[in-house]
Amino acid sequence: RSLYSFATALGVGMLVMVLSWLVKYRDGFSWSDPQLQFNWHPLLMVTGLVFLYGQSILIYRTGRNATKKRLKVTHALLHLSAFILAVIGLKAAFDSHNYAKPPKPNLYTLHSWFGLVAVIIFTGQFVFGFVSFLFPGLSRTLRAAFLPVHVATGIATFTLCVVTALVGITEKTIWTLGSKYQDLPSEGVMVNFIGLFIAFWGILVLYLVND
Amino acid sequence: RSLYSFATALGVGMLVMVLSWLVKYRDGFSWSDPQLQFNWHPLLMVTGLVFLYGQSILIYRTGRNATKKRLKVTHALLHLSAFILAVIGLKAAFDSHNYAKPPKPNLYTLHSWFGLVAVIIFTGQFVFGFVSFLFPGLSRTLRAAFLPVHVATGIATFTLCVVTALVGITEKTIWTLGSKYQDLPSEGVMVNFIGLFIAFWGILVLYLVND
Ligand code: HEM
Ligand code: HEM
Ligand code: HEM
Ligand code: HEM
Ligand SMILES: O=C1O[C@H]([C@@H](O)CO)C(O)=C1O
Repeated sequence: RSLYSFATALGVGMLVMVLSWLVKYRDGFSWSDPQLQFNWHPLLMVTGLVFLYGQSILIYRTGRNATKKRLKVTHALLHLSAFILAVIGLKAAFDSHNYAKPPKPNLYTLHSWFGLVAVIIFTGQFVFGFVSFLFPGLSRTLRAAFLPVHVATGIATFTLCVVTALVGITEKTIWTLGSKYQDLPSEGVMVNFIGLFIAFWGILVLYLVND
Repeated sequence: RSLYSFATALGVGMLVMVLSWLVKYRDGFSWSDPQLQFNWHPLLMVTGLVFLYGQSILIYRTGRNATKKRLKVTHALLHLSAFILAVIGLKAAFDSHNYAKPPKPNLYTLHSWFGLVAVIIFTGQFVFGFVSFLFPGLSRTLRAAFLPVHVATGIATFTLCVVTALVGITEKTIWTLGSKYQDLPSEGVMVNFIGLFIAFWGILVLYLVND
């Protein structure tokens, strides 16, 4: 469907913008300098828990001509990739606090609480989804009973990931730009547009999954 | 329904917490001192566009024994109250920028962009909803065609209001607490819990409206 192609283009645009922001304004990536290690966090979280997560939800709607088995495997693999990126992205955030001088505490913001809840539910979904629908697989009736729960929880958690990402970019922007944000420097404009793209991507995925 | 009563209790708890936060930690309210005038903004936005907006959406689900006409009028009156509170709440935010010394610019944050979009769509919904369903009222067929659009737009905009409020409290907290937020002082804990309550209220409203 053409709206799906449009959504994917928007999602890719979102990723390109996040990457450009981090390279151009936030000095790029490193795994040894805590300040730059942090930059992996937004990139990997948005790629995994916002983009791939959304793609995986949409696959049942767009891949109607593939076999059910193939769709399930793709859905599981996309979620697995999202999960791996999320774990590395979280490690980057925690490291950037623990190895900062002086170290910063962890898990004190609303953003980090939302993020933790989202990742825990996501992990649960993966385990329960895998066991129920792929291997070993529940009986037909149990599967049918569990499916609506799986779908509703999956969609709610996707929404929570989008919200978490939006709160996260706001945090980071205020911490780094401070009162310079007021003059809307080019970095501020860029970050606001990243926020609009993330929100728009989220709305499109939710719209497509409900239609 | 008992889940509805629980949701309402949660919503009232949310409002009480917002009020306590502003009185206890943010020095309360005033309409002459720009710093304190700002405090009306979170209180009125959450009361109007998060609490009353949600109540108004739920009224069709809970008030099943009232006449359709009565439900529509209540729905419209609740939205009208939400709209009035939102306008005063926005005025408080703009005044607090314009009358600060030195004045601060307006509409530079992602939060304010989301907020502006939400209020504009909300106003449009109100006007179109009023004209279509209450007075003068469209023909039966046009009404039936417009209803799904009205419902979908209304739910999406409610979600946007919840997101905007969450981003807003994060902004305010980082600006006022700065790096003290790291030590999770009692104000930080309170604000994080306000965020959890707002999110939980949003989830319950969306769940109830879909069931
Ligand atoms: C779904 C996406 C995301 C999730 C699940 C998530 C989750 C988390 C978690 C659990 C932490 C706590 C790490 C610690 O305490 O050491 C954290 C920290 C942080 N994240 Fe994210 N994050 C996401 C996206 C983003 C994005 C897009 C940004 C944008 C820059 C961001 C910015 C931050 C910042 C600045 C911190 C450090 C301060 C804090 O703990 O809040 N996050 N994130
Ligand atoms: C974190 C992991 C997962 C999340 C967040 C998730 C989320 C979702 C969501 C939101 C849907 C609804 C899609 C739609 O209605 O088009 C869905 C459908 C489904 N998922 Fe998952 N899922 C996960 C893992 C899995 C796994 C591992 C399996 C195992 C194969 C699986 C099997 C299914 C099936 C069979 C459907 C139903 C498709 C249909 O017939 O409509 N999911 N999932
Ligand atoms: C649905 C709810 C909300 C909407 C629609 C909304 C909308 C807006 C708008 C349009 C502005 C721009 C005012 C200006 O530029 O002068 C603004 C400013 C602001 N709002 Fe909200 N707001 C909401 C809730 C909240 C909440 C709950 C807080 C929590 C404290 C908050 C904190 C702020 C702050 C700190 C500003 C000034 C900085 C800025 O422009 O972002 N808002 N809001
Ligand atoms: C005077 C103005 C309005 C009138 C007369 C009106 C009328 C209606 C009607 C007839 C319904 C259908 C309820 C049903 O499902 O049986 C409805 C639902 C809804 N309206 Fe309005 N509306 C008005 C304003 C608004 C406004 C301003 C909003 C929000 C921006 C809004 C949001 C909604 C939502 C979210 C629903 C879905 C509720 C549900 O599914 O139960 N309405 N409205
Ligand atoms: O993890 C964090 O990243 C920013 C900044 O220190 C790194 O650029 C910040 O304030 C955090 O708490």
